[in-house]
Amino acid sequence: MDFDTIVNLSKSRGFVFPSSEIYGGLRSAYDYGPLGAALLRNVKEQWWRSMVKLRDDIVGIDSAIIQSPQVWEASGHLASFTDPLVECTNCNARHRLDKLEDQDQCPTCGKRGTFAAAKDFNLMFQTNMGPVATAENRVYLRPETAQGIFINFENVRRTSRMKLPFGIAQVGKSFRNEITPGQFVFRTREFEQMEMEFFVRPEEADEWFQYWVKERHSWYLDLGMTDENLRLREHESEELAHYAAGTFDVEFLFPWGWDELEGIANRTDFDLKQHTEHSGKDLRYFDAEANERFFPFVIEPAAGATRTTFAFLIDAYSDEDVSGETRTVLKLDHRLAPVKVAVLPLSKKPDLVEVTQRVAASLRERYDIEVDVTQSIGKRYRRQDEIGTPYCVTIDFDTLDDQQVTVRDRDSMAQDRVAIDQLDRYLAERLKV
Amino acid sequence: MDFDTIVNLSKSRGFVFPSSEIYGGLRSAYDYGPLGAALLRNVKEQWWRSMVKLRDDIVGIDSAIIQSPQVWEASGHLASFTDPLVECTNCNARHRLDKLEDQDQCPTCGKRGTFAAAKDFNLMFQTNMGPVATAENRVYLRPETAQGIFINFENVRRTSRMKLPFGIAQVGKSFRNEITPGQFVFRTREFEQMEMEFFVRPEEADEWFQYWVKERHSWYLDLGMTDENLRLREHESEELAHYAAGTFDVEFLFPWGWDELEGIANRTDFDLKQHTEHSGKDLRYFDAEANERFFPFVIEPAAGATRTTFAFLIDAYSDEDVSGETRTVLKLDHRLAPVKVAVLPLSKKPDLVEVTQRVAASLRERYDIEVDVTQSIGKRYRRQDEIGTPYCVTIDFDTLDDQQVTVRDRDSMAQDRVAIDQLDRYLAERLKV
Repeated sequence: MDFDTIVNLSKSRGFVFPSSEIYGGLRSAYDYGPLGAALLRNVKEQWWRSMVKLRDDIVGIDSAIIQSPQVWEASGHLASFTDPLVECTNCNARHRLDKLEDQDQCPTCGKRGTFAAAKDFNLMFQTNMGPVATAENRVYLRPETAQGIFINFENVRRTSRMKLPFGIAQVGKSFRNEITPGQFVFRTREFEQMEMEFFVRPEEADEWFQYWVKERHSWYLDLGMTDENLRLREHESEELAHYAAGTFDVEFLFPWGWDELEGIANRTDFDLKQHTEHSGKDLRYFDAEANERFFPFVIEPAAGATRTTFAFLIDAYSDEDVSGETRTVLKLDHRLAPVKVAVLPLSKKPDLVEVTQRVAASLRERYDIEVDVTQSIGKRYRRQDEIGTPYCVTIDFDTLDDQQVTVRDRDSMAQDRVAIDQLDRYLAERLKV
Repeated sequence: MDFDTIVNLSKSRGFVFPSSEIYGGLRSAYDYGPLGAALLRNVKEQWWRSMVKLRDDIVGIDSAIIQSPQVWEASGHLASFTDPLVECTNCNARHRLDKLEDQDQCPTCGKRGTFAAAKDFNLMFQTNMGPVATAENRVYLRPETAQGIFINFENVRRTSRMKLPFGIAQVGKSFRNEITPGQFVFRTREFEQMEMEFFVRPEEADEWFQYWVKERHSWYLDLGMTDENLRLREHESEELAHYAAGTFDVEFLFPWGWDELEGIANRTDFDLKQHTEHSGKDLRYFDAEANERFFPFVIEPAAGATRTTFAFLIDAYSDEDVSGETRTVLKLDHRLAPVKVAVLPLSKKPDLVEVTQRVAASLRERYDIEVDVTQSIGKRYRRQDEIGTPYCVTIDFDTLDDQQVTVRDRDSMAQDRVAIDQLDRYLAERLKV
């Protein structure tokens, strides 16, 4: 499967559209169409379910995108969240130093030896809050959701009465003014994250770090990602962020090679210490039993929701040979599939449409369904295969007599004849949450 | 119930915290704590369910916050989404003209007659995309989600093969650089919207407008909002936006008076025409049967997710007299309640805790639950009442013998003795989605 194939499928089936496409698009920004929005929702929902709903040691929050600038001073983003840029003195184009690879010829105008000294460019989007654009009211769009968790550590601990070890999770948009975004929705300036900060006693940090690396790796596999397309890669010591005692990346084999879906880092007590120092509020944890106060360590599994959605899409894509013809199927886990059940009357004959509406109504309460009355049944099956719908329910002329429908399985293409009044049970067994 | 009571409950129970609180807060920005984030999620989920999941004529999308500036030129936001401001020539403070109410004394420095002529101030946040801050790469944070729908009208119609009448829905953050935000989470610069654009034949617009006014009003009532706290108010003709043929507001009786939760507007064919004109792409709808091409009219129910969440919270708040003591209860509909079931062992005795864990595990798959082992059972009931938990399940010493638990109903305070193996069925009947 090559890159263009998946990009074309995304556009033609309504997963992802270039943002502001009618205006020629905005570089590297995307809108999620009906199927893409559903897939993204399902990925986020599965993450929330495994991280918050099914656990009693993690709670969720939803913090603001625009925070006090002091947050970014404390976190180090104001000083160091930068890329070194060089400007061409001939054409004024700016280039990332690391992308120039020692060449001295400007990629834009072609002149040699025109580069000024490199300058640091901060990747945070800045704007102003209030009617006057002055340095005092300058604010930033968050480049990560994590800091919104750290600054609420004490508020959450107090109101939720959590004891170590415990975690705080959040899903939401972040923004990075990347100089070179690219690879479709993989690296975009506006993107969505799923981050969780797990607070532990310092002496238990290693153990929890190992636990979360394993847990997060399993999450992808459990949702059907192919083992060979997934790997864990430990950061070399020179690669580690200055505050991190260890980091593993979960990487996926994209068409352009292995690339990051998620990082699991042992952030030590860096963040809580920084915010204590900058805010003057003591963010140490008080252990009543041991009567001691200390800074917890933090284990952070930080995943990209949009790029993970993209990876599931790529991983699920398959072209199969079926009696000499090519069948395209998205073999998405049913929990991720945008449509769970398609209801298809064999023809537009009023009798069949009436039964179709009745069956659809009975399924809609529980599942995301689609009713399709267009084209031949073969073409409709192909469409549902291409968007990853696990089950197609066909209402045919026999249905009017025997009150049975045909249920077709996406992967095996096997067909079962099922009584309408047994359909709910039949599907419930196969579409378990 | 006064305003401060609900603000205090929000902070003390972990619904809402001032954003960046440890840094003194960022004016009128808020973070949602564990319970607030859950309540907000549930409100959005119920909206999505009623607008997208249960309907076959509406699909959902998720468009970018940062769009092409041309979108805002076409929509009219660049030219007219403004507040007139006057600057004091003595202290340089800026004030909203409509808030000065003809006084000529500066509220900030107290000088008289120091006001310069009013200037229009655009309420969109602006920033720059890319490494150089120039006019060419200036972009805006969307002030509404609606335009992201209009610019994708043709993409969605084509890929989803929708026919009129049909709708496109979206939930997401929007940003308005309000000069005077206020009233807690009611008017904030960063907020969340739930908007749906319903495209219809022009001659059917009136009928669909009436339909959506009724439908949206019912949504609040169905989720338990008190009828007397809710009203529909039709805009006077001088109040109407220039493009609107009619607008109703759904208003809630806030502690400061009636204020808007949602507007339902007949936007006519204004938006699709504007984008056709500015983009050069023909966004007319082609009716194959009638062989005609025309601009659909748009009916838009546009609700504020964050302020609606706040309204549900206020509406649910109640102080009751129970044998001479005051009981605070959030009478939230169970679909909105952040915690559906609390599981409470009578003591921390290992036998009881063991059963508690077992019961909790069996319920957690289906419901948002909370296990609480702190304090006296009376205090724990009061906490659950205050956060609106519909059912408390208590494990006591008898449970060890008879395998039954006590289920307490939040509103009636009635207690039922239920066998553990019947608990799932007992709750399922009462906590229907």
